[in-house]
Amino acid sequence: MEPQYGTVTSEIVDELKKIVGEKNTIFEDKTKLQEYGMDTLSLLTGVVADPEVAVKPESTAQVSAIMKLASSHKIPVTARGAGTGLAGSAIPTSRGIVLSLEKMNKILEVDTVDRVAVVEAGVITKDLCRKVEQYGLMYAGYPMSTESSFIGGNVATNAGGAKVIKYGNTRKHILGLEVVLANGEILHLGGRYRKSTWGYDLMEIIIGSEGTLAIVTQVIVNLIPGGGKTLDLIVPFPDTETVVQAVSKMIVEGNITPVAVEFMDKLCLTMSAKHHEITLPFTDRDDVEAYLIIQLHGNSQEELDATYEKAGELCLENGALEVFAAESRKDSENIWKVREEYGPGLRLLEKQVYNNPGDVIVPFAKVPEMMRELKKLGEKYNTTIAVVAHIADGNFHTLYVKPDEVPPEQWTDYAKKIYEEMTEIALKLGGVGSGEHGIGLLKKDIFLRTKSPTEIEIMRGIKKAFDPDGILNPGKII
Amino acid sequence: MEPQYGTVTSEIVDELKKIVGEKNTIFEDKTKLQEYGMDTLSLLTGVVADPEVAVKPESTAQVSAIMKLASSHKIPVTARGAGTGLAGSAIPTSRGIVLSLEKMNKILEVDTVDRVAVVEAGVITKDLCRKVEQYGLMYAGYPMSTESSFIGGNVATNAGGAKVIKYGNTRKHILGLEVVLANGEILHLGGRYRKSTWGYDLMEIIIGSEGTLAIVTQVIVNLIPGGGKTLDLIVPFPDTETVVQAVSKMIVEGNITPVAVEFMDKLCLTMSAKHHEITLPFTDRDDVEAYLIIQLHGNSQEELDATYEKAGELCLENGALEVFAAESRKDSENIWKVREEYGPGLRLLEKQVYNNPGDVIVPFAKVPEMMRELKKLGEKYNTTIAVVAHIADGNFHTLYVKPDEVPPEQWTDYAKKIYEEMTEIALKLGGVGSGEHGIGLLKKDIFLRTKSPTEIEIMRGIKKAFDPDGILNPGKII
Repeated sequence: MEPQYGTVTSEIVDELKKIVGEKNTIFEDKTKLQEYGMDTLSLLTGVVADPEVAVKPESTAQVSAIMKLASSHKIPVTARGAGTGLAGSAIPTSRGIVLSLEKMNKILEVDTVDRVAVVEAGVITKDLCRKVEQYGLMYAGYPMSTESSFIGGNVATNAGGAKVIKYGNTRKHILGLEVVLANGEILHLGGRYRKSTWGYDLMEIIIGSEGTLAIVTQVIVNLIPGGGKTLDLIVPFPDTETVVQAVSKMIVEGNITPVAVEFMDKLCLTMSAKHHEITLPFTDRDDVEAYLIIQLHGNSQEELDATYEKAGELCLENGALEVFAAESRKDSENIWKVREEYGPGLRLLEKQVYNNPGDVIVPFAKVPEMMRELKKLGEKYNTTIAVVAHIADGNFHTLYVKPDEVPPEQWTDYAKKIYEEMTEIALKLGGVGSGEHGIGLLKKDIFLRTKSPTEIEIMRGIKKAFDPDGILNPGKII
Repeated sequence: MEPQYGTVTSEIVDELKKIVGEKNTIFEDKTKLQEYGMDTLSLLTGVVADPEVAVKPESTAQVSAIMKLASSHKIPVTARGAGTGLAGSAIPTSRGIVLSLEKMNKILEVDTVDRVAVVEAGVITKDLCRKVEQYGLMYAGYPMSTESSFIGGNVATNAGGAKVIKYGNTRKHILGLEVVLANGEILHLGGRYRKSTWGYDLMEIIIGSEGTLAIVTQVIVNLIPGGGKTLDLIVPFPDTETVVQAVSKMIVEGNITPVAVEFMDKLCLTMSAKHHEITLPFTDRDDVEAYLIIQLHGNSQEELDATYEKAGELCLENGALEVFAAESRKDSENIWKVREEYGPGLRLLEKQVYNNPGDVIVPFAKVPEMMRELKKLGEKYNTTIAVVAHIADGNFHTLYVKPDEVPPEQWTDYAKKIYEEMTEIALKLGGVGSGEHGIGLLKKDIFLRTKSPTEIEIMRGIKKAFDPDGILNPGKII
């Protein structure tokens, strides 16, 4: 049962204006306000909400003042990063206040001795990556959407991406957080150290909590030595099972840890290449069913060459039809453009596509079984299930092509059924329902249905400990 | 205020015997029972407790049955690993039942495809390390006490050790947990995957919670490729400040990530060598004040040689007096024996030594300041503060030598004052009160005094969500 929330009166709007300034309060301009009612899930599925007011604080003190005001009137507050989330965590379904971190976008410090950066939550992750590169350092918590996503949003969803196989997801790179609680109190959790056991780790529970426990205002991130060389490969395979076998040989027997091992089936890769008007090798071969895009790293050219030789050989010995190595920066950019922005390509099909931003996980050893299950699921629902996967992590993204016999108005519900069945399969195989996007709105039903009641109860207790009135991003996760 | 707990009646003992068997119930044998009232903190400081009964379940089902019984009578239950804890987390100060995991010591599976091992909580961590070595793999969550500590205890305290600089502490290596809740329910958290964002991460909050939230019965650990070569160095320095400078140059400018960088001051190293009757180089030099023990790793001999050359040069350029590289396995064993078992050496001194099992952390950049502060603190209290440190982590272990003018019966209280002041200094420098041992009994006062009331309140809420009656390891942490 949802608690009784207060509404945003004109007096409250005046108070908010006093806190963040007139220019940082969006209330009268309803068109502008509507932009704060959606995120990337909205673009894909049409789910939007209608916030009462949006504010853009410029400091932690302002965030704190907003929360004090909101909590005294029990008004829902939905923290918002760049709005690139794929699960709807930033959609303010309980209305109230949208608190956008977009103006808290300063990189406060790059500390080369402690090897940390201290940044505000609204910093674009890619800007952080570029900045620390100047110091020969690297921020390795790279989600696919770094060109636009904020570090605060990455923390809120424990974002992943293509490079998790080598570096781990966002959690692994976070050393400290400054957060504002529902009651406006400011906490500093963690710090410039990598080792700690000092009571329950509140930082760890806030990471991935999608703005429901606290609002992240500053982040201390771990930096690692940068440099070295990378090489991008495209490797075509005659079928899916062979791909999995080759990846296993490369990683398990070859002891190679690539930066990325991305799986794309033929449909996704060729349509994406077509959309971007990029010519990639092997796209005209009839005997190809799937591709690997592999990025290798070496501290030196020699190390990279040796890794490339070994990886290439292992692929060819295990069923790859050829191996293409990018010869120029442009080659690499093209390969990654086709991979990263693969969604629009499918829209070139004449049929309707459900671009389901799902991201189920199975143990790596279960990837072949998951591939077979997806095939069976496609047959059952008479749909083509197109697959892009962070395959070494067992992390699947899928798109469904609408069967002719399903009327367009029934397609979303039909696709949702396929999606939930797919999630249940992943759970049965010992996996989990989301590897990198979070639960938000999209997965809440299936999450609540498949988690044990006890776990849900404990999570509700944790929520209550942080946010007794339930004003932080209501209706998300639990 | 401590809740009202039930006592262990003879009926309850009979019930326990039914669950775990007569042979796994320690009740009549009071001498034996007393062993379950202490851990390593007891050996150092004399703090012991008096459990009513100790049980040694052999399965998760038995643990569950014990917890159901205990919770229905509100009897405190203290989970116990190997008893190697240095903070007193396993001392059952509220009496009740001690639940020892010692008989749940099976390595259930080593999975080379998913690269995980599934082990019961009572497995000795070193046994796990040895087992996975046979598969060319490595468990990198290595605490100093692996010869005896259990993996379950490592999880409970988020244990660290000398190799955290390269590999991270226990948390980084845990993928999944099977736990039994206070009410006897069994939960499976995480799994055979490395990427997940699926609601509040209960596993992360249980890690480091010292048996106060749930009892860990099984652990899925991450394994990494093993192999490669290591080399151990001893490097003497004329003073402490120079050491810090050299470490900084090696790590920050040299981009070298050693497996371990251990600091020992002259007193600790020479006395420990004397105790173990081991001859180490440079111990007779008068111009030496401190030593680094460094372990380097290379995937190949060439890589190791190159790293050694670079590290050695950087040390010598930055004030090291010499560099000694271990030439044999025996050399290496000797070096590490002197480091790992340094405590007893100090007892050879004629004066009383407070072997304080503290483990404060400061940011690496603050290590020089912490060293100066320790010197000042020693002067203030007229004591010699001997220092051993995981220096690259900013992690300090200290021992205090009793000043002549302090009467023996006042020494413990006197030393506690020094210890708490030291912790406050570390916190002021942006550090934390424990890097690897946990809070337990030893640090509870200073923890509660220095944490914000709000954080404590939230932690109590979390405790309540897991364990409403407060029967799991009462009196620890909060």
